[in-house]
Amino acid sequence: MQNQFQSKLQPDDPVEKILTGDRATGQLHIGHYIGSLQQRVELQHKYQQTILVADLQGLTDNGNNPRKVSSNILNVVADYLAVGIDPSKTTICLQSAIPALAELTMYYSNLVSVARLQRNPTVKNEIASKSFGSSIPTGFLMYPISQAADITAFKATLIPVGDDQLPMIEQTNEIVRKLNSIAQEEILVECRPLLSKVPRLPSTDGKSKMSKSMGNCILLSSSEKEITKAVKSMYTDPNHLRIDDPGQVEGNVVFTYLDAFHPDINYVNELKVKYQQGGLGDGTTKKILEECLQEIIKPIRERREMFIADKAQLIDILRQGSEKSQDESNQVLNRVKKAFGLNLFG
Amino acid sequence: MQNQFQSKLQPDDPVEKILTGDRATGQLHIGHYIGSLQQRVELQHKYQQTILVADLQGLTDNGNNPRKVSSNILNVVADYLAVGIDPSKTTICLQSAIPALAELTMYYSNLVSVARLQRNPTVKNEIASKSFGSSIPTGFLMYPISQAADITAFKATLIPVGDDQLPMIEQTNEIVRKLNSIAQEEILVECRPLLSKVPRLPSTDGKSKMSKSMGNCILLSSSEKEITKAVKSMYTDPNHLRIDDPGQVEGNVVFTYLDAFHPDINYVNELKVKYQQGGLGDGTTKKILEECLQEIIKPIRERREMFIADKAQLIDILRQGSEKSQDESNQVLNRVKKAFGLNLFG
Repeated sequence: MQNQFQSKLQPDDPVEKILTGDRATGQLHIGHYIGSLQQRVELQHKYQQTILVADLQGLTDNGNNPRKVSSNILNVVADYLAVGIDPSKTTICLQSAIPALAELTMYYSNLVSVARLQRNPTVKNEIASKSFGSSIPTGFLMYPISQAADITAFKATLIPVGDDQLPMIEQTNEIVRKLNSIAQEEILVECRPLLSKVPRLPSTDGKSKMSKSMGNCILLSSSEKEITKAVKSMYTDPNHLRIDDPGQVEGNVVFTYLDAFHPDINYVNELKVKYQQGGLGDGTTKKILEECLQEIIKPIRERREMFIADKAQLIDILRQGSEKSQDESNQVLNRVKKAFGLNLFG
Repeated sequence: MQNQFQSKLQPDDPVEKILTGDRATGQLHIGHYIGSLQQRVELQHKYQQTILVADLQGLTDNGNNPRKVSSNILNVVADYLAVGIDPSKTTICLQSAIPALAELTMYYSNLVSVARLQRNPTVKNEIASKSFGSSIPTGFLMYPISQAADITAFKATLIPVGDDQLPMIEQTNEIVRKLNSIAQEEILVECRPLLSKVPRLPSTDGKSKMSKSMGNCILLSSSEKEITKAVKSMYTDPNHLRIDDPGQVEGNVVFTYLDAFHPDINYVNELKVKYQQGGLGDGTTKKILEECLQEIIKPIRERREMFIADKAQLIDILRQGSEKSQDESNQVLNRVKKAFGLNLFG
């Protein structure tokens, strides 16, 4: 599957920097694969790419259950390596291991009002979807500031995002402009979204986001049997009772997945026509999808098993990436401190 | 003047740790001297004392005017030395030079709700007294979390505060208890207030807080002439028109200052009786106060001039204190990270 990007490097552009990452709150699944991981594997050949394992951000809504974060850090790194992210091309680093990110967040927090954070559409939607009640953690409300710290610390100019994350880019650039205005020089660089046109993959039950705890997703570590079971239970067209009945393709998770994963788009289109006319059973479409998914996941799962078995190597990759990132981010931090006049010790 | 403290060391207590500090937003004045600096000079002989020059906290309401902070850091250090704080006994350190403080703030921010911060009486009062309008900086709202980071990073158990700062102690201890409950062990120690009974010294115009920009305060660097002028302009009893009239002592700034600064309390009481009876002029009481203040400030001013002339020495003191504090606070940070399971690199 080819991704198309809104932003393109101009021939005379220097190599741009990309920052992406994932909250370390669970293993990655095929939604991540199609939505971002596959793209990152391509991007690492064209750009300077840093991937942040966002453990601190993961804590912003798991403060009372930190094991959900700590137990998934190496899982996420293994997922990266398994899909083909190459640590010699992409810097993989751990948010909590880079003190400058917390320090920058503190500086930037003086430039953003509480009201501005509360108006952020992404944060508003996420708060509505979570069960915080009246107890929104302060860390959660301010995570757009923390993201701005991440982005600017790496001088990232291209940020792969979905539509729903555009307000984060806007918030970051507001901070960049404010800081540059205080410094009277261009200390920080603005960033642009690298919009992915891949829509968010629905869960296997067609209901919502994929989540391991809901049992409605296919992980990159899923076994052959788990994939079989997941595809079998997949939501199709509830009114398509007999094979000969005309079936509906929209909202039919099997076809959404075929669109996303099957290599032959023409073949998928033929299947759709047949399904809509009647005469194609869910058993058949599921079998086609299952074969396709098994083929994609098998090599990923096998590589993943190899990587997750060597935790010391994973830690080492993360440590090396984090050390490199410390140097980079400390340079930015020093410039920001200088802008605030707080560079007393040089 | 003797200060009395609510908390007292028990004979079998280990030497407790004290954390105090000042926002670096202006030179210190005689209100600081009588309210806290004098006390600190005594405390440094009895306790392990750390004084934090709070430049980051100073930025929380000066994000757009950072020079107000940066230009005052060394002023504050010179003030400390001038009154007799001894860097061989008291650690003097700079908040922005201690990355663990920002990192701890980030961790703790996940344990405190936005609503909890908004209910904090100290923050509410301060917000009401400032001209933020609807633009309360996020950093300002969360400064109780930042203070909790400061206190816990130094394992401070005694915090010299005024009554109005008690909610800060409470907020800190809430965080301590939450974190210890997550860690299932006593990672952080609770702190207690060391309540000063010295009431806040009014400004010379009797109106509000002392402020250099309002021209209603006597700085530790004030010249003889400035002190003369400040005392002459001091607010007394507006109805005490002739020397023979009975005068009012309550709200009369000259008497408030005599109470605070004059070494002979009996003599001050005699003056009060005479003033209330009639027969004592403001010129006389002001002269007595002025002599007393000149005597107190002269040696401080002279020492201050010496210290402020050697900026390299001030920076060096601050650097040494900050380096020591980095080690201390990193130890606490590591324990907190371990509590959250984020100690992957040991």
